[in-house]
Amino acid sequence: MSALVHQEPVPELSNGPDITLEELQLAARNHSMPLEALQYPITPVGMHYLLTHFDIPRIDPAEWRLTIGGRVRHPFTLTLEDVKGRPAVTRAVTLECAGNGRAKLSPRPISQPWLFEAVGNAEWTGTPLRPILEEAGPLDDAVDVVFTGLDRGVQGGIEQQYERSLRLTEASREDLFLAYAVNGQPLPPQHGFPLRLVVPGWYGMTHVKWLRSITVVNRPFRGYQQEPAYHVTSSEDELGEPVTRILPRSLMLPPGIPDFLPRSRRLGLGTWVLEGRAWSGQGRVVRVEVSTDGGRSWMDAELGEDGGDFAWRSWRSPWVVAQEGEYELCCRATDATGSVQPLTTRWNAQGMCNNQVQRITVVVGEQLVPVQPPVDGIP
Amino acid sequence: MSALVHQEPVPELSNGPDITLEELQLAARNHSMPLEALQYPITPVGMHYLLTHFDIPRIDPAEWRLTIGGRVRHPFTLTLEDVKGRPAVTRAVTLECAGNGRAKLSPRPISQPWLFEAVGNAEWTGTPLRPILEEAGPLDDAVDVVFTGLDRGVQGGIEQQYERSLRLTEASREDLFLAYAVNGQPLPPQHGFPLRLVVPGWYGMTHVKWLRSITVVNRPFRGYQQEPAYHVTSSEDELGEPVTRILPRSLMLPPGIPDFLPRSRRLGLGTWVLEGRAWSGQGRVVRVEVSTDGGRSWMDAELGEDGGDFAWRSWRSPWVVAQEGEYELCCRATDATGSVQPLTTRWNAQGMCNNQVQRITVVVGEQLVPVQPPVDGIP
Repeated sequence: MSALVHQEPVPELSNGPDITLEELQLAARNHSMPLEALQYPITPVGMHYLLTHFDIPRIDPAEWRLTIGGRVRHPFTLTLEDVKGRPAVTRAVTLECAGNGRAKLSPRPISQPWLFEAVGNAEWTGTPLRPILEEAGPLDDAVDVVFTGLDRGVQGGIEQQYERSLRLTEASREDLFLAYAVNGQPLPPQHGFPLRLVVPGWYGMTHVKWLRSITVVNRPFRGYQQEPAYHVTSSEDELGEPVTRILPRSLMLPPGIPDFLPRSRRLGLGTWVLEGRAWSGQGRVVRVEVSTDGGRSWMDAELGEDGGDFAWRSWRSPWVVAQEGEYELCCRATDATGSVQPLTTRWNAQGMCNNQVQRITVVVGEQLVPVQPPVDGIP
Repeated sequence: MSALVHQEPVPELSNGPDITLEELQLAARNHSMPLEALQYPITPVGMHYLLTHFDIPRIDPAEWRLTIGGRVRHPFTLTLEDVKGRPAVTRAVTLECAGNGRAKLSPRPISQPWLFEAVGNAEWTGTPLRPILEEAGPLDDAVDVVFTGLDRGVQGGIEQQYERSLRLTEASREDLFLAYAVNGQPLPPQHGFPLRLVVPGWYGMTHVKWLRSITVVNRPFRGYQQEPAYHVTSSEDELGEPVTRILPRSLMLPPGIPDFLPRSRRLGLGTWVLEGRAWSGQGRVVRVEVSTDGGRSWMDAELGEDGGDFAWRSWRSPWVVAQEGEYELCCRATDATGSVQPLTTRWNAQGMCNNQVQRITVVVGEQLVPVQPPVDGIP
């Protein structure tokens, strides 16, 4: 992908640093994971990031059907009870929006203005996809498997259902499944009730929500969300490379307490533990490094229990703070393929896959501001 | 409150129309209710609006205690099991952030940049507050009851726990309760686990989350979140009027399908139903009017089942669209006190209580844009 990456702004996208009211409409609807949710190995519902392209459909589970068809020998239809009656798997899977980090690009591509927190690690329950495809029996000319959602709208000047495809070989991987529960509860509407696709390791756009059909086709699918959307490209004139698997990223649980608006952190002198989580869809996380000087020097963090192939991994690093002042904390992950988070922006026209390191400003000092006296006598 | 309201911009707050990256940090963390959630009488968890001043604390329920003390005869402490063992009530309550509508003010006060959707109507379960206060026995000099949360941070240059007070008479109202469940589930962390205050009819800042103590004091409480925060004031030099009960507001479920980024709506010719919900903390909603011409003319909507004293009320109005073009849809509520939503902005320095009418742009026409052909044969 590095061949497509460059640092030059493209003139027609010279957006200022500020967010337009149109972008705010998306930022107000969709939400990221508050960074303090990094404390939880499994992200609670409501703290998991959420991106909805169109509207969240309201679906009557009694009326809902999943159709499996197209270039298959045995097309068939499943009710929700049918789906739940099939073999079940439960897996913790880290999902991240492909546009995570977009608002940090300059000039900023206009779309959902994510900072770095469009992520979550929930425990999804569903039934494996492969046996469903096998029962349908793709014909010899099968190429792509298209997953169509019930959410409808206009994007890029085209009216559409939300739909994305995978190559048949990728769709037939053992670890894909159709989820009807999250964290032990039925899917809430916003996460795709009654059924969504889960594709461990891939960015969020692939995990089609409100699934209504699975269609095998005999040529590469070229619907809007497949092409031109979700491509890493240096200009809008060229297609570029499709977004697929999640690049490595680490995030830090911000230490200390926040200042309401700048969200900078306040901390006293002492010994603290810096901690957070890291993930990659390309391979397991093998290293996390921490910097307390804005990336000028790095130390290895201790890695926690491996979350398995598809879930994030915890990390921690003690930090002794002996001197007051302002610190810039960073962390960066390396995965088993040797891929490392970059320090600087990888600009691209759609604002995809920006896995540059997070930076947290911490102001260290005793009694920096007046403290409101405790009214209840509890310090 | 109208005496405090004026339309003149104050020079020191001349913020442009665009949102700064600092504000975006709040917009990305906190989230509003997607308008399509107006379909649900009870807002699902994860779609309800959420505002967190500092960080969402992670609380061990076994360690957690609620202390009731201050100017009382019998201070005492409750465990979570104690709280759950007390008489229980379940009530649907509409909560709205006092800053809802702030991003529509010009100049825009810098804080959480809400549009109009910082609302939700969940079903809360908890135990009434009044018997707890009665058991504690406020002393004769009792004035205020202070509710302190476990969330800590810096705001307005002051380090603080989040805390707010009510006058003893208001705190002793029959309908206040301490909630440990929402929509039949234990509170999720972001809604105040393990216990939050619910004050039906009041704006959200009063419903203190992560409650740790209830303290009776013998003078008006003047902590930061009470004063100067949450006041309707024409400048930062004067205190103004405290924010208390929710002003009337109605919201419309946007008809048709959305265009991804502008969020304008597309609709075909035909007969449609405009519908939504309305609420007020001052008195029941007695009237909702609808306009399809940007507020130049109005029609009465049909009111649905009354949601009770504290929950929103549904409304609907048929709409026959015989001509293509662009329409601006509005709705406005009137409550039992005669208070009506205004058409124009009521500017104030903190951006509080802006209940001006919502406006939705709808483009009506057949086949306005190309339609992506259905890959699955289902239209």
